[in-house]
Amino acid sequence: MTDRPDWKTVASEKKSRQLAAIPKEWLDRLTANLPPQTELDVTLYPKVCGLLDGRELDITESDVPILLQRLSSGEWTAVEVTTAFCKRAVVAQQLTNCLTEIFFDRALARAAALDDYLKTTGKVVGMLHGLPISLKDQVNIKGLDSTIGERLFLYIQDTTDSYFPFSPGYVSYANKPAERNAVLADILESHGAVLFVKTNIPQTLMWPETHNNIFGRTLNPNNRSLTSGGSSGGEGALVALKGSPLGVGSDIGGSVRIPSACCGPLSNSLDGLKLFMQAVIDAKPWMKDPLAVCKRWNEEEYRLADYGDGKQLCFAVLWDDGVVAPHPPILRVIDWVPLKHAEIYKCISAIWSAGAAEDYEIVTAVSGEPVIQTMLPETDILAGETLSYRPSSATAFSAYKLWQVQKARRVLREEYLQHWQETIEVTGTGRPVDAIICPVAATPAPPHGTTKNANYTMIWNALDYAALVIPVSKVDQKLDVKRERSAFYNDDDKAHYESYDPATYVNAPIAVQIVGRTLQEEAVLGMAEIVDFALKAHNPKL
Amino acid sequence: MTDRPDWKTVASEKKSRQLAAIPKEWLDRLTANLPPQTELDVTLYPKVCGLLDGRELDITESDVPILLQRLSSGEWTAVEVTTAFCKRAVVAQQLTNCLTEIFFDRALARAAALDDYLKTTGKVVGMLHGLPISLKDQVNIKGLDSTIGERLFLYIQDTTDSYFPFSPGYVSYANKPAERNAVLADILESHGAVLFVKTNIPQTLMWPETHNNIFGRTLNPNNRSLTSGGSSGGEGALVALKGSPLGVGSDIGGSVRIPSACCGPLSNSLDGLKLFMQAVIDAKPWMKDPLAVCKRWNEEEYRLADYGDGKQLCFAVLWDDGVVAPHPPILRVIDWVPLKHAEIYKCISAIWSAGAAEDYEIVTAVSGEPVIQTMLPETDILAGETLSYRPSSATAFSAYKLWQVQKARRVLREEYLQHWQETIEVTGTGRPVDAIICPVAATPAPPHGTTKNANYTMIWNALDYAALVIPVSKVDQKLDVKRERSAFYNDDDKAHYESYDPATYVNAPIAVQIVGRTLQEEAVLGMAEIVDFALKAHNPKL
Repeated sequence: MTDRPDWKTVASEKKSRQLAAIPKEWLDRLTANLPPQTELDVTLYPKVCGLLDGRELDITESDVPILLQRLSSGEWTAVEVTTAFCKRAVVAQQLTNCLTEIFFDRALARAAALDDYLKTTGKVVGMLHGLPISLKDQVNIKGLDSTIGERLFLYIQDTTDSYFPFSPGYVSYANKPAERNAVLADILESHGAVLFVKTNIPQTLMWPETHNNIFGRTLNPNNRSLTSGGSSGGEGALVALKGSPLGVGSDIGGSVRIPSACCGPLSNSLDGLKLFMQAVIDAKPWMKDPLAVCKRWNEEEYRLADYGDGKQLCFAVLWDDGVVAPHPPILRVIDWVPLKHAEIYKCISAIWSAGAAEDYEIVTAVSGEPVIQTMLPETDILAGETLSYRPSSATAFSAYKLWQVQKARRVLREEYLQHWQETIEVTGTGRPVDAIICPVAATPAPPHGTTKNANYTMIWNALDYAALVIPVSKVDQKLDVKRERSAFYNDDDKAHYESYDPATYVNAPIAVQIVGRTLQEEAVLGMAEIVDFALKAHNPKL
Repeated sequence: MTDRPDWKTVASEKKSRQLAAIPKEWLDRLTANLPPQTELDVTLYPKVCGLLDGRELDITESDVPILLQRLSSGEWTAVEVTTAFCKRAVVAQQLTNCLTEIFFDRALARAAALDDYLKTTGKVVGMLHGLPISLKDQVNIKGLDSTIGERLFLYIQDTTDSYFPFSPGYVSYANKPAERNAVLADILESHGAVLFVKTNIPQTLMWPETHNNIFGRTLNPNNRSLTSGGSSGGEGALVALKGSPLGVGSDIGGSVRIPSACCGPLSNSLDGLKLFMQAVIDAKPWMKDPLAVCKRWNEEEYRLADYGDGKQLCFAVLWDDGVVAPHPPILRVIDWVPLKHAEIYKCISAIWSAGAAEDYEIVTAVSGEPVIQTMLPETDILAGETLSYRPSSATAFSAYKLWQVQKARRVLREEYLQHWQETIEVTGTGRPVDAIICPVAATPAPPHGTTKNANYTMIWNALDYAALVIPVSKVDQKLDVKRERSAFYNDDDKAHYESYDPATYVNAPIAVQIVGRTLQEEAVLGMAEIVDFALKAHNPKL
């Protein structure tokens, strides 16, 4: 129809350039030494692969506060720290296919400049001086592609003259480098961070696994037969392998929390998250991004002033959403009564799918790439099987109907808030429940292509609540046996129950969400630290 | 088609019950004494009508802080104060038709209970003890109708089982009393306020004039041939006549600011606005309404800590939006370069009209009342003339397209914010412009039915900026003569220029908007106080 290049050619050329961005010497050393595909748990491989020396292993195993302290004292240079993480990111890439853009030359030049600055002035550039930070692919960096998906996070790139502009994304967006940094990238660099890689995501971003037509599938380093989660699946795998001390994702239905639960958190410590939040807020992002809420870091809220100073907290545990009961490993984590969860899922799904099929079709038509319908490995698709996870144009509706669904969501949000406030009658603290502790999904990381939904995360997006994920344990073949159960909520619940077999989930991480009400980010962080401390006291291996 | 009652019958019965809610003795006294319809300026009538005695006039002429001080000291009882405002509200109603629900019995019982409480305990109930407050019709009060429009402000009443529920509103919503208070009504009562009347609005709420099929048209007390503005036009007229010391409206395109500019402010003093904001925020509305931003009153922001402590402010004056040039009286108020205003108007109008016609048609179909197409008095409509201000179903579009328009709006917001921040180069304060001072409309209050748009107000809604209106002066037949002008921005601008004749606008108020960036409410209030002080120093008659 047009003289556009074949999308497969565009994609494979892009992938070749990606490989060429890795120092050949590193690749050669690793390739000789890679574990076989059948080896599922590759988390220990970075330590034994031989690419990183002892000091580089020390650096990459350090928490964010330690890194920052040694960088600011000059004990470790930014060039050393960046080199160590570049190497480890390459190891992660070879094991899990977690990266998209790789730009080590640029990162090392930046690190050298930071070292010079510190040496010359005796001062750090900012709160994140010399810290390597990885970014989910859709966060724009000047001169680099943002190949897949739209920029949802702290930045808008579209330069639209019409009200119905072409949406960027997908293969059609390869080889179209960004003309300027996302606000977030600017902010991180202004604090002295070193950006060095971008990470993989699913086509359209709306899938809780990670696979696309350019970079392919990202694997879970704990068990490569399982998904890394999505949409920030590349970050999940990279950070779990300590190929980055801090990764930035975005989440409108679980896209940070699901990879965190599947792989490991998006920072190697809660302090990392706190420093990230403080640094971003310190830069007053609302003066650059009109969608950022104008609210300073509130130390009083973080210290839980509104939560009895954190001295006697009352957590509610949501064991089960009453729609699909979690698999046994999930129930081992440490009574919230769910209110209308099925209705809220239906509502938020309707909002997401209102115009989604049209969006996907318009964007993929530019390059000719197909819209991915399943993330099952090709070998697992049965002959004649029709698979579809995607919304079809049959789910599209008018702006008027979208408004009605938004109204229904508003009512559900009001009811849920009232439901929360009414717990003041039962907590004994004089306050409603302080936070909800709940599963991140009804399953540990599922095998590739089998994720059915993101209900346990997207519920909190639908309500616009603050939620944070912390790791708790790993699947235990003895403890997490299949339990007898004969009554089911519905067919989905029954099928989900039947699909469980502990052997499938060998070594898969288990995590919990800590959930607070709207704009309670500081308090959620403060309470997560308390929970994390308690969990570590209980199990020092964490 | 059904056995529903005729909408005209429903409307006229409702109107009769409204009249019956006014004490007959007051009505009789007033009716004998009403000015002829040809008398345009009725602002002095409350003082001479004889319904209020000297003390009642003193009470109703007092600013909010004075009222609160005398109520809390017991010098004036809540019953006295409420009685005085009830009387004056009746005068306002007879002169301008500004009320919908009238519930003096309930208000006086409430006032008596407040007096008892103060007498018994020596304490006030809260920050607004005994203060009568009027509410725009759509704010729900338990047991009363919210006849017209949807509840946009701090409350949701729809109890929806389906995602495509019936929208309440209009004649079809008469005689369906609310089952509970709006969150806002609860909050005001918890602070000791006395609710006593609700006020008139246009059918659909989306019109900057005030007229509907139940209660009819609200007139401007400064010149009854001019509109009171809308959609909070009832509040505008009532507060201008001092029939209420504080009125609550809502504003998604100018619905508070336009009536304020046309009639007078929605409180008799800026202190009234400040007390209202503080009282509402003090009650933590975000714990009851999920759409309320969780942000405490910030005294530091109010004291302009981020604005050089208010010592050397730099205001930018937006003289003209480059689309339609203001009429001469508007230019007399005290250089902001408008950025893409025409494009922003187009964008926000597209969002508003995306499903509006469908909404209006569905809701009016329930009662059979027609959708109002013009607010011209019937006598002014020329034979055969086709008038339409309303979006038609031709402007409706899909949810997908709505998303594209929302994206375009996001880009425009980002560009506008950047434009604002770049003024740091020219202000000389080391900060960008602190606030914009601009017209509220391109005209003083227009004659009934001739309002063409709400561009000068809705621009700030499109950008989600904080804006406040303060009165400046009144139209002056000598100063505000028509000026020579030969070049025009476009046909609308030319028609607008030609429509100007100072004689049309006799006695019409002139006001300005003070505009700050997103969530800068406290700072805008702080700066408005500085501007108001300067204006009063310049012209003590204000």
